[in-house]
Amino acid sequence: MPRVSRRARARPRRTAAPDPRVADVGELGLLARITEASGPPGPDVVVGIGDDTAAVRVPADRLSLVTTDALVEDVHFRRRTSTPEDVGWKALAINASDIAAMGGRPRHALVSLMLPPDLPVVWVDGLYAGLRAMAVAAGGIGLIGGNLAQAECVVVDVTMLGDVAPGCLVRRDGARVGDLVVVTGTLGRAAAGLVLLDNTMIRNMVEPTLAARAVAAQRRPQPRLGAGRVLGETRAVRAMIDLSDGLALDLGRICEASGVGVRVDAARLPVDPCVLPTAAAARLDALDLAVGGGEDYELLFALGPGDAGAVLGRLERETDTSGVVIGRFVPREEGCTIVRDGASRALGEGGWTHFRRRGARPGAEGGR
Amino acid sequence: MPRVSRRARARPRRTAAPDPRVADVGELGLLARITEASGPPGPDVVVGIGDDTAAVRVPADRLSLVTTDALVEDVHFRRRTSTPEDVGWKALAINASDIAAMGGRPRHALVSLMLPPDLPVVWVDGLYAGLRAMAVAAGGIGLIGGNLAQAECVVVDVTMLGDVAPGCLVRRDGARVGDLVVVTGTLGRAAAGLVLLDNTMIRNMVEPTLAARAVAAQRRPQPRLGAGRVLGETRAVRAMIDLSDGLALDLGRICEASGVGVRVDAARLPVDPCVLPTAAAARLDALDLAVGGGEDYELLFALGPGDAGAVLGRLERETDTSGVVIGRFVPREEGCTIVRDGASRALGEGGWTHFRRRGARPGAEGGR
Repeated sequence: MPRVSRRARARPRRTAAPDPRVADVGELGLLARITEASGPPGPDVVVGIGDDTAAVRVPADRLSLVTTDALVEDVHFRRRTSTPEDVGWKALAINASDIAAMGGRPRHALVSLMLPPDLPVVWVDGLYAGLRAMAVAAGGIGLIGGNLAQAECVVVDVTMLGDVAPGCLVRRDGARVGDLVVVTGTLGRAAAGLVLLDNTMIRNMVEPTLAARAVAAQRRPQPRLGAGRVLGETRAVRAMIDLSDGLALDLGRICEASGVGVRVDAARLPVDPCVLPTAAAARLDALDLAVGGGEDYELLFALGPGDAGAVLGRLERETDTSGVVIGRFVPREEGCTIVRDGASRALGEGGWTHFRRRGARPGAEGGR
Repeated sequence: MPRVSRRARARPRRTAAPDPRVADVGELGLLARITEASGPPGPDVVVGIGDDTAAVRVPADRLSLVTTDALVEDVHFRRRTSTPEDVGWKALAINASDIAAMGGRPRHALVSLMLPPDLPVVWVDGLYAGLRAMAVAAGGIGLIGGNLAQAECVVVDVTMLGDVAPGCLVRRDGARVGDLVVVTGTLGRAAAGLVLLDNTMIRNMVEPTLAARAVAAQRRPQPRLGAGRVLGETRAVRAMIDLSDGLALDLGRICEASGVGVRVDAARLPVDPCVLPTAAAARLDALDLAVGGGEDYELLFALGPGDAGAVLGRLERETDTSGVVIGRFVPREEGCTIVRDGASRALGEGGWTHFRRRGARPGAEGGR
């Protein structure tokens, strides 16, 4: 078994003493490691890890934003295909993305962990390395608290606090008929990455640089933090959401909240270069991946036609982020449609939802 | 099978149409129920459920407090012995208790749920009934957001936001040598309840009123919200913690954070009347239940000897809560001890921790 002997050579400690497990170091030991790994709290943190609650100062002229999102083992990630660093990065990134989608700045996070007792402690260390890497990349999110509990599988449940000036807050419900639909970056990259993560044969059929980029997007999403903040500051964005569940579903959420319909032009969608070759190799529809695939964490927003030039110009200048107009909001009665080659169809049920109703197409939940 | 036919009579709908499951109503259906069940947001909530994040106003002169604590099925509760209303109540109560232990007031909660697809939807309805009941009992905690994810077992992970005037904040680290150790209410009731919940034979040996009170304490803890706030307002409390993991462990945490030791007088402990008969029936040591048993959610705090009369008088007058002096903080070198019948022993490892180190006595984790 050459594989085993290679591993043994690479980790000689393994034969001397087995890797300690969560149950070996106990809650107090784990808490000490986590406190150390969380890094120093910021100057606005009055009480950090190690008391009944954390305590922070919120600037008097800002609203406090708060959101929570969890990664569940074998639902959102697999320990076989994601490193703990990836999981930590992603757990923080997806929450920071929600703050950005309100026009806000992420500030502090609580990390609620559920861990099986036989989980290697190095996995928790890796998780915190990933959390810290994203915290630093986001301009300094403080890891100021959390909770530890035992469970059958790993759950990383993050609560993120942020803030925003009241006038810069962007909700979902302000899109008006005639507004333009704009999306940052490209679509479908993370969905392509999920296909490639799950199937080595398909991955070998895709150009390696493209494949690596797709897989990286799935493992370590890059939320549009600067872009969200700048878009809020323009005070011209009428509605915004981050693309976690796919364009179709998330655009539908803006429409539902705003009481409007939408007409998307398929030809204008910024489909990621990874998508076509992945779709071809996997015998999937490229448009389905781009429209229905989740986890791109791009920003989707509504702009008045008169504001588009100035807002997209500022976005590009200040954050090097391109925004592409992909359609227009229409009266609710006209529904939510996508036009492709002159034919129009409903935006439909693309995108991934938890607890899909029974009878939905099998496999629709992908590997999440 | 008489049991089955009794159930069929009690729930005639079952033969007509089976109780819907989480997977039947889907994420959107569940979200609609939850939004309805969460009740109206308060006046300080700018954005509630249904956007990327919630947004709240924090009064300019207050610190923001934040904490998170989870209940995991088959670790912290069993669906067989706790109703969903109990679980909802407790999930909110244990977080509110942490806010009270800082001298603060609980304000807003996010509820992050992990649910198995085959969970009956009525269970989620019951959970929210319990959450709401506690939210109302706590003087109006707003349920302003959360998350839904799929998992193998139920997890209810609550994040609680609160606030406090900076001068009223009470941490763990301010106890000084010579300070009195004070505890509210009684000790061991919830631990007795856990023993009785798990064993009907033992329960039948305990006087029914006492047994019911113990079980209620375990299922629906009553956090000392008013007492925590008043104690903070006195500005005389030097350190405080809520009793979630048992007197021994939680008092040890104050000592560790404050750099002191402690000497507890066993004869002065306010052992709950449920404890003696339960311990006798279960052949357990009553003092172990009172000192090592968790989940009483009483407040444990440090007072300068000169402040005790005024503070405990005000506590009693304003919140009808009695505080009992159970010992005194001593120099760290003298360690943490409990004195019983003239003999002194280490406060030791009573209380329950997650991920107990291997080799710890089996069964020490109780039914949690």
